[in-house]
Amino acid sequence: MIPLLNDRDIEFQLYEALDTESLLTRPRYADHSREVFNATLNTAKSVAERYFANHAVKADTQEPTFDGESVHLIPETKAAWDAFVEAGFLAAHEDYDEGGAQLPEVIFRVIMSYTNAANIGTAAYPFVSVGVINLIRAFGTAEQKALYLPLIMQGNSNGTMALTEPAQGSALGDIKTMAEPADDGSYRLFGQKMYISCAEHNIAGNVVNMVLAKIKGSPDGVKGISLFIVPKYLVNADGSPGQRNDVVLAGLNHKMGYRNATNTVLNFGEKDGAVGYLIGEANKGLGYMFQMMNEARIGIGLGAAAIAYQGYNLSLDYARQRPQGRLASSKDPSSPQVMLTEHADVRRLLLAQKAYAEGSLFMGLFASALFEDQNTAEDPDQRKRAGLLLDLITPMVKSWPSKYGCIGNDHAIQILGGAGYMREYEAERLYRDQRLNPIHEGAEAIHGLDILGRKVTMKNGACHQVFLEEVQKDISAAQAIACLSDMAKQLETALSTLDNTTQSLIALMGEDVDLGLANATLYLDMYGRVLASWLWLKQALAADKGLSSTQQHNEQDQHFYQGKIHTARYYFDWELPAVNQYADILNSGNRVPFDMQDDWF
Amino acid sequence: MIPLLNDRDIEFQLYEALDTESLLTRPRYADHSREVFNATLNTAKSVAERYFANHAVKADTQEPTFDGESVHLIPETKAAWDAFVEAGFLAAHEDYDEGGAQLPEVIFRVIMSYTNAANIGTAAYPFVSVGVINLIRAFGTAEQKALYLPLIMQGNSNGTMALTEPAQGSALGDIKTMAEPADDGSYRLFGQKMYISCAEHNIAGNVVNMVLAKIKGSPDGVKGISLFIVPKYLVNADGSPGQRNDVVLAGLNHKMGYRNATNTVLNFGEKDGAVGYLIGEANKGLGYMFQMMNEARIGIGLGAAAIAYQGYNLSLDYARQRPQGRLASSKDPSSPQVMLTEHADVRRLLLAQKAYAEGSLFMGLFASALFEDQNTAEDPDQRKRAGLLLDLITPMVKSWPSKYGCIGNDHAIQILGGAGYMREYEAERLYRDQRLNPIHEGAEAIHGLDILGRKVTMKNGACHQVFLEEVQKDISAAQAIACLSDMAKQLETALSTLDNTTQSLIALMGEDVDLGLANATLYLDMYGRVLASWLWLKQALAADKGLSSTQQHNEQDQHFYQGKIHTARYYFDWELPAVNQYADILNSGNRVPFDMQDDWF
Repeated sequence: MIPLLNDRDIEFQLYEALDTESLLTRPRYADHSREVFNATLNTAKSVAERYFANHAVKADTQEPTFDGESVHLIPETKAAWDAFVEAGFLAAHEDYDEGGAQLPEVIFRVIMSYTNAANIGTAAYPFVSVGVINLIRAFGTAEQKALYLPLIMQGNSNGTMALTEPAQGSALGDIKTMAEPADDGSYRLFGQKMYISCAEHNIAGNVVNMVLAKIKGSPDGVKGISLFIVPKYLVNADGSPGQRNDVVLAGLNHKMGYRNATNTVLNFGEKDGAVGYLIGEANKGLGYMFQMMNEARIGIGLGAAAIAYQGYNLSLDYARQRPQGRLASSKDPSSPQVMLTEHADVRRLLLAQKAYAEGSLFMGLFASALFEDQNTAEDPDQRKRAGLLLDLITPMVKSWPSKYGCIGNDHAIQILGGAGYMREYEAERLYRDQRLNPIHEGAEAIHGLDILGRKVTMKNGACHQVFLEEVQKDISAAQAIACLSDMAKQLETALSTLDNTTQSLIALMGEDVDLGLANATLYLDMYGRVLASWLWLKQALAADKGLSSTQQHNEQDQHFYQGKIHTARYYFDWELPAVNQYADILNSGNRVPFDMQDDWF
Repeated sequence: MIPLLNDRDIEFQLYEALDTESLLTRPRYADHSREVFNATLNTAKSVAERYFANHAVKADTQEPTFDGESVHLIPETKAAWDAFVEAGFLAAHEDYDEGGAQLPEVIFRVIMSYTNAANIGTAAYPFVSVGVINLIRAFGTAEQKALYLPLIMQGNSNGTMALTEPAQGSALGDIKTMAEPADDGSYRLFGQKMYISCAEHNIAGNVVNMVLAKIKGSPDGVKGISLFIVPKYLVNADGSPGQRNDVVLAGLNHKMGYRNATNTVLNFGEKDGAVGYLIGEANKGLGYMFQMMNEARIGIGLGAAAIAYQGYNLSLDYARQRPQGRLASSKDPSSPQVMLTEHADVRRLLLAQKAYAEGSLFMGLFASALFEDQNTAEDPDQRKRAGLLLDLITPMVKSWPSKYGCIGNDHAIQILGGAGYMREYEAERLYRDQRLNPIHEGAEAIHGLDILGRKVTMKNGACHQVFLEEVQKDISAAQAIACLSDMAKQLETALSTLDNTTQSLIALMGEDVDLGLANATLYLDMYGRVLASWLWLKQALAADKGLSSTQQHNEQDQHFYQGKIHTARYYFDWELPAVNQYADILNSGNRVPFDMQDDWF
């Protein structure tokens, strides 16, 4: 069996490149230990292997069906849900007094990474549910929390997030679902939601939908959006499902991949209106949803990382076992063939896959560590800086793994060649699964508008400033190390290019906001490359430290560390330099897409 | 219905950017006229729409099945084959006295482009058959030609090309299929072939397999490969199927896309050996196959072009009809939403799609025009130069459309957003179909080794030299035109960068051939970008000419020409400059993939 991730790398990322062990000094984690963390992750790996990986292929070929009455999933799905719930993972990072295991965010994210790598379609059920738990915990009333949190945490309901409508994807301000106040303080919802994941299934007795809608008479646009709990069955005081709510499945969409996560069209209010319960204040729904969305975006980045990782493990395994041809210097046709890994171009593809997969995982875990620091660091300044940096990097943490994950899974197909294109192998399924990630939780362009149109200027540029300062710290550290000093120099130049470009685009936006934002997706990619380079430098720094403290005879560790440094070098030599080309386009305020006319297509 | 290609663009490419009309002065085409060409293309479009497009979706969802006895395809497949045969397209470019319509290569390629755009899986049956016709016509004996050519041309058999084996994909020198001489001058073949397209079906009564095998005692490697005709049924003198040959279907592979083209594992010689007839001389089989392969590679590039074109037409149609959000400058949420095409980033994606789709089609037609000139130009020097240039560009004509076609079809998904990921729409099918192209007829890396390891140095660098000269001609022409002079300058710089890089890599290969070739795939992409830029400049030159001769009131033509020039500018500003980054990597002899060790992964 192809390993799900790489346990040595998880250990490295958590304890060498990040300082997860230092969390144990914080009061919230006083009861824990590194052994507890590791035992938890071992359980997660076992659950993922046993209950998720077992039906990844089957779920792809036998996707959910709707017979007009109910939706059927292969039975392994419920077993996976139950095993995940049973292990307490749905609430792993919640407080003890909320029924959780009070584990750090980063540990929870690694738990999810195992299930993501094993079977992303099935992993969607817990993934979305955790988002709903966080949302209700943060913004629900005491009553709502008491009713819905145990329901989900104990696996008797999953949760969904119902934002998109048939006519509204990226532009949520234009949603049409209406909420009418009822006499009892609840609301009646009318409308249709589209592309809602996991909203019908047979894995649990209820579904708690978190629905964006507009209360009659509320302002136009995003300022008139409210958030509602709309369960499939109204929930009795004891948590059992009561009366069927007026929310029904209009049909299933059929995805290219990610298939075991049902993708639904939901009708609200075909009869008297779907009963909904307002969360927090009216008209503040989008803000609530966005707190959860930001966590979900990191989660999507980590989902992309896991699929890319699985593709990397798969093609590496294949390349090591498949003899094919000879090197150009070896002219004798009777000489033995070499393995695919002997061909430099295959190594290039594998290096790119490794850079994307391990780089994406680290990007997601780094963001999770910032999330942790924002909430539990003892130094208020550290909390603040972590929050600023996290706000800034979230668009890239979502989009860089999604974009390069697709390319990494493309490379997996290419290394397998003909076999890569066949459904008899799994490379093509991973490629199909991965393609969702640049679309959901904000299509790529949305994140470009977010980073350039909001994040770099917000709080008077403080987020961007913290980024510059933090990157500079690692540049300084790397300058002192012989094998990393070249990379330090490359990153310093790129960082300055990024900053100059940022200032020039801010100036251009001041003159013409549409022109200034026209090439924002390219800017997103530029920022993503600098971020990815920084985080690879961080890994290289940790690897260098590991190398110098590793026993001479521990060859395996030496190879592991050399691989990290060499992969960082690959990224710096082959992928970072594109920022110069991007800067030329961006700094000149390139007008080509902006000026293109519809009639000219 | 989404148009298959764009008739205005076909007209432009054939008669404005290429000078197809001038072929009419050559003796071979004396009977033809532009009207005949156009009528033929109209028929091709009708056949493609009526008999190919009609089952593209159905064939994807109801792929070929094997019941252990025979293979079943949906009945529309046979109807499509029959219609294509009936129209005389299988032999459209063959001579009259060989039963053909004696049409120019470029017209035949446009015929195929319509069927490719309509349904690439079904189009594979005629596509491969035409390759087999060309092969037998070029290298078969008079008897072989008399027996097999009418059989295929009249649709009573298709043809296949059986090169790959389970253990041998890119490295054909190591194939194991053996041929033993029989007393009657024929051979008996034993072995297994893998990934053979179209080798079983129910569209015609026979299958003519062209099989690479080694005659017992032949030299190791590529110098010991011979080519055989191995029909499924031995062919009686009247062309009817005779005795069943000892070649049987071991099973079907199941592809991610391109599904209606059966993909087979074939066993030769389970009993007494499959009867095979040697083509040409023993041990020269790979050379014969390569003549056909070069044509097939242009065909693959054109297949990729057609799928990319279809994706472009699809997403453009969607983007023009889908309202979503507002521009950043428009803050009023009650103002009407704008169409997707109003968003600069969507236009960027569409521009890239247009650059890839129209650029790939033109690249393939340009190569076909060179093929034509090589064979029918009256000036011997023109023939020679056309041949040199065609040899040189073939690796890019296959790989550039395949690589960027995938990216273009990826963009189509992204523009459709959630809908793009759903099988209810066709963007995802096109994306799956396209992914085969960087694999078959030589995986991408093979073309990198071909261009750098063979083409640029062969004939003492004459091919590369002709390329430099021909590009320079168009640069000079564009320098004189105000709106194109910037592009002329950009291309001149890039051409010089390409040439310098070429010389430095040739020197490096002289020192260490493995190191020199290590980054050949990047060099391939570099050459491809320069070639694509040149051909976009050619289109821009033709568009500029069209613009200046277009009546003021013909707005549609003006828009068309402006679109061509603007797309060229997009390519020059956004995609050509990457060659500078590539040059840095290549000229420094970057050792990162070369030095990577297996243990470090």
